[in-house]
Amino acid sequence: MHTRKDFVPGLDGVVAAETSISFLDVEKEKIIIRGENLIELAEEKTYFDVVHLLLEGRTPNQEERTSLEDYIKHFYRLPDDTLPLFQLLPKGMHPMDGMRTVLSLLAGYDKDIENRSSQENKQRAYQLLGQLPFITVNSYFATEGKAIAYPDESLGYSANFLYMITGKKPSALEVAIFDQLLLLYIEHEMPNSTFASRVIASTNADMYGALTGAISSLKGNLHGGANEAVMHMLREVDTVDGFEALIRHKLQNKEKIMGFGHRVYMKKMDPRATITKEALRKLCDRDNDYTLLEMCEAGEEIMREEKGLYPNLDYYAAPVYWKLGIPIPLYTPIFFSARTAGLAAHIVEQHDNNRLFRPRVAYTGKSYE
Amino acid sequence: MHTRKDFVPGLDGVVAAETSISFLDVEKEKIIIRGENLIELAEEKTYFDVVHLLLEGRTPNQEERTSLEDYIKHFYRLPDDTLPLFQLLPKGMHPMDGMRTVLSLLAGYDKDIENRSSQENKQRAYQLLGQLPFITVNSYFATEGKAIAYPDESLGYSANFLYMITGKKPSALEVAIFDQLLLLYIEHEMPNSTFASRVIASTNADMYGALTGAISSLKGNLHGGANEAVMHMLREVDTVDGFEALIRHKLQNKEKIMGFGHRVYMKKMDPRATITKEALRKLCDRDNDYTLLEMCEAGEEIMREEKGLYPNLDYYAAPVYWKLGIPIPLYTPIFFSARTAGLAAHIVEQHDNNRLFRPRVAYTGKSYE
Ligand SMILES: CC(C)(COP(=O)(O)OP(=O)(O)OC[C@H]1O[C@@H](n2cnc3c(N)ncnc32)[C@H](O)[C@@H]1OP(=O)(O)O)[C@@H](O)C(=O)NCCC(=O)NCCS
Ligand SMILES: CC(C)(COP(=O)(O)OP(=O)(O)OC[C@H]1O[C@@H](n2cnc3c(N)ncnc32)[C@H](O)[C@@H]1OP(=O)(O)O)[C@@H](O)C(=O)NCCC(=O)NCCS
Repeated sequence: MHTRKDFVPGLDGVVAAETSISFLDVEKEKIIIRGENLIELAEEKTYFDVVHLLLEGRTPNQEERTSLEDYIKHFYRLPDDTLPLFQLLPKGMHPMDGMRTVLSLLAGYDKDIENRSSQENKQRAYQLLGQLPFITVNSYFATEGKAIAYPDESLGYSANFLYMITGKKPSALEVAIFDQLLLLYIEHEMPNSTFASRVIASTNADMYGALTGAISSLKGNLHGGANEAVMHMLREVDTVDGFEALIRHKLQNKEKIMGFGHRVYMKKMDPRATITKEALRKLCDRDNDYTLLEMCEAGEEIMREEKGLYPNLDYYAAPVYWKLGIPIPLYTPIFFSARTAGLAAHIVEQHDNNRLFRPRVAYTGKSYE
Repeated sequence: MHTRKDFVPGLDGVVAAETSISFLDVEKEKIIIRGENLIELAEEKTYFDVVHLLLEGRTPNQEERTSLEDYIKHFYRLPDDTLPLFQLLPKGMHPMDGMRTVLSLLAGYDKDIENRSSQENKQRAYQLLGQLPFITVNSYFATEGKAIAYPDESLGYSANFLYMITGKKPSALEVAIFDQLLLLYIEHEMPNSTFASRVIASTNADMYGALTGAISSLKGNLHGGANEAVMHMLREVDTVDGFEALIRHKLQNKEKIMGFGHRVYMKKMDPRATITKEALRKLCDRDNDYTLLEMCEAGEEIMREEKGLYPNLDYYAAPVYWKLGIPIPLYTPIFFSARTAGLAAHIVEQHDNNRLFRPRVAYTGKSYE
C-alpha cells in the first residue's frame, strides 16, 4: 500500500489510468486515438469509422462499414414500452437530465446486464449508439412539451440525427459538418466524464451506470455545458463590437469566459477548434453572413492578448450548431451522444483490466483524540 | 502544472481531496466523522443526529432534533406526478437501477436546480433524505410488480422505513437496530461512490447528477453490492458445516469472498462490523436461534486463518437485514439511502471549494509518429 502523498487539487497531472485508447500528446500537439491522429481522421473518416476504431481497434473496411451502418439502424427506435417515460419528463427539465433518466431506465431492458465481457459490452455500446439520437432529440422535445419525433431509417446516422432535430432533410454539407463534429467530440483521453465512468465501472458497475455518471458530469458548465454557455454569450449581443465589449466586461468582473482554456492545452489552440472554425467559415459562406465568425475571432483575439488563453472545441462548436439550426439546449446532449463511443471504449477497458478506484483524503476537520 | 507521476492502480493511497467531513484513522482504528468517533455515535445517537452532524457540523439539541424530524416528514411522499414512473420500471430491473431512474427524474422537479449554494444544497439533501425511504421501497416493489406502498407519517424515520418495507409496525428493538445500521452506513471517507460524486460535482454538476453517479457506483459488487452477495452465500447452505465447506470451496477456486477485506482496513476487523455483529446476536437472542451468527463466525475464522482477512460492515449487515425481514434486493438500496447523507456533505464541500477533477493517463496503445 502506498502512503499518503501530497494533495494535488483536481488530480492535475496525476496519472489515473493506463489506456491504449487515446492520448493528448501536448508536445506534438496531437490527439491520438488508438495510434491515429484525430484531426486526420476528422478530415478523412466518418463518425462511425472512428466508433469502429475505438471499439475494434481499427477503422472498418467498406464491407464492415456498410454492415455496421445497417446494424445500427435496428436501434434507431426505442422499445415502445419506454415511450411513456418521455411524457413524464417535466417541462423545463434540462434535456441532459431527461437523457439520463431514459438511459437509466434502459438498464431495465438489458436482459444480460450482468454480463460485462468485452464482447457483450461492445454490443451494448453499438445498440446504445443507435438509440442515442432518439434519446437525445426526444428528451429535449419532451421537456419542451413537444411530441415524439421518429427516425427515418432510410437515412444514415448523422443525416437521421439532424433530420430528427430539425424535421428537415439536411443538405450534404450540413450532414458532413454535423458528422465531423460528432467525430471531433468522440474521445479525448481522460476528461472528467470519462474519469467518472471509469471510477464507477471499477466497482464492477455496469455500462448504464458508468454512462449515467458521465452524463451527469458532462452537464456541468466546467465541462460539456460550456458549449451552451458560449452560444448564450454570442446571443447576448449581435455585433462584433458588442461581443468585444461583453468579453472585456466579463474579464473585468473576473468571470471565466466559457469556451476558453483547457486543463491540458492551456497554451495552445485546441486543434479540434481549428478544424471546427473552418466548418463555421463554410456555413458563413453558405449564408454569405460572417457575423458569427467575426465575433468569435474578435473574442479569440482578446482572450489571447489579455489572458494568453485559446479556444477549446466548445467555442467553435457552438456557432456551428447554431448555423445548423440546432436548438441550444441540445448542444451538450449531442456532445454526450457523440462521446458515448469513447466512454464505452473506456468502460470496456476498465472492466477488462480492473482495480477498484478508492483513493484517500487529507483530513482538515475538527481534531479528535 | 504537475508532470506525470507513476501510475497507481485504483489511486490506492493517493490523496484525492481535502475534507473536513470524515477520516479513517487506521492507526487509532477509528472512523472519524467531523471530529467524532462513529462507533461512539452509533452507541449514543440516532441516524438523523448524525445527518445533522454531517450537514451542520454538530449533533442537534433536543429542539433541533424534533424540528428536523417534523420537517423531514413533509417529504415522506413523492410528488404525485412522479408516481407513474414506478409502473414503467420493468419487472426484474435491479432496484438500484430503479432508484437511479427515480432520482434522476426528480432533478426535473427541483425549481432551483442551478442554485448550488451550501444552504440550497443542504435543503435539497434534507428533502431527498425524506424522500428516500419511499424511493427505495417502491423502486423495489415496482420491479417486483407490486403496488406502491405509502408512508405512515405518525412514525419516525426508521420506523416508517421498516414499516414501508415489511408492512408491519416494527418493534422497538427492530427500529433501534435498523436505525443503527443506517447510522453505520452513513459516511466512510472516500469510498468509490463518494469519490464518483465528488468527481462529478467538480464540473459544477448538480446534486442529482452526483448522486446518480454514486448510486451507479454503489451497485457494483466490489462496493455496495457486497451485502447482497453475502446473504446469497449464507442462503446457499443452512448449517455451519455447509458454510465452512462453501467458503473453503470458493477459496480453492480463487473466488473473492464477499464481505471480507477493505482497501483501508485490510488487516483489522471493520469496527462497524463488530457492533453489527452484536446487533445480530440480539436478533438471535430474540429468535432463540443462533444459526446465522454461528455460520458467520465460522466464515470469519476461516478467512482470518486462510487469508488474514477480516469482515467488513457488509458481512454482518446482511444477516441483520435478513433477520429484520428485509428482502435481499433492498440491502444495497438501503445502503445507498443511508449513505446519501454523507454523499450530500461531500457534494456541498466540493461545490464550496472546487477544482475540476481531470487527471491524465499513461498511454499504452499503438505507437504513432
Ligand atoms: C477548462 C477549465 C475548467 C480548465 O481549468 P483548470 O485546469 O482547472 O484551470 P483553472 O480553472 O485553475 O485556471 C487557471 C487560470 O486560468 C484562468 N482561466 C482558465 N480558464 C479561463 C477562462 N475560460 N476564462 C478566464 N480565465 C480562465 C483561471 O481563472 C485561472 O487564473 P488564476 O490562476 O489567476 O486564478 C477552465 O479553463 C475553464 O473553466 N474554462 C471555461 C469552461 C470551458 O470552456 N470548459 C470546456 C472545456 S473543454
Ligand atoms: C474491498 C476490496 C475491493 C478491496 O480491494 P483492494 O484494496 O483493491 O484489494 P485487492 O482486491 O487488490 O486484494 C488484495 C489481495 O487480497 C485478496 N482479497 C481481497 N479481498 C478478498 C476477499 N474478499 N476474498 C478473498 N481474497 C481477497 C485479493 O485476492 C488479493 O490477493 P492477491 O494479491 O493474491 O491477488 C476487496 O477486499 C474485495 O473485493 N472484497 C470483497 C467485496 C466486498 O466485500 N466489498 C465491500 C467493501 S466495504
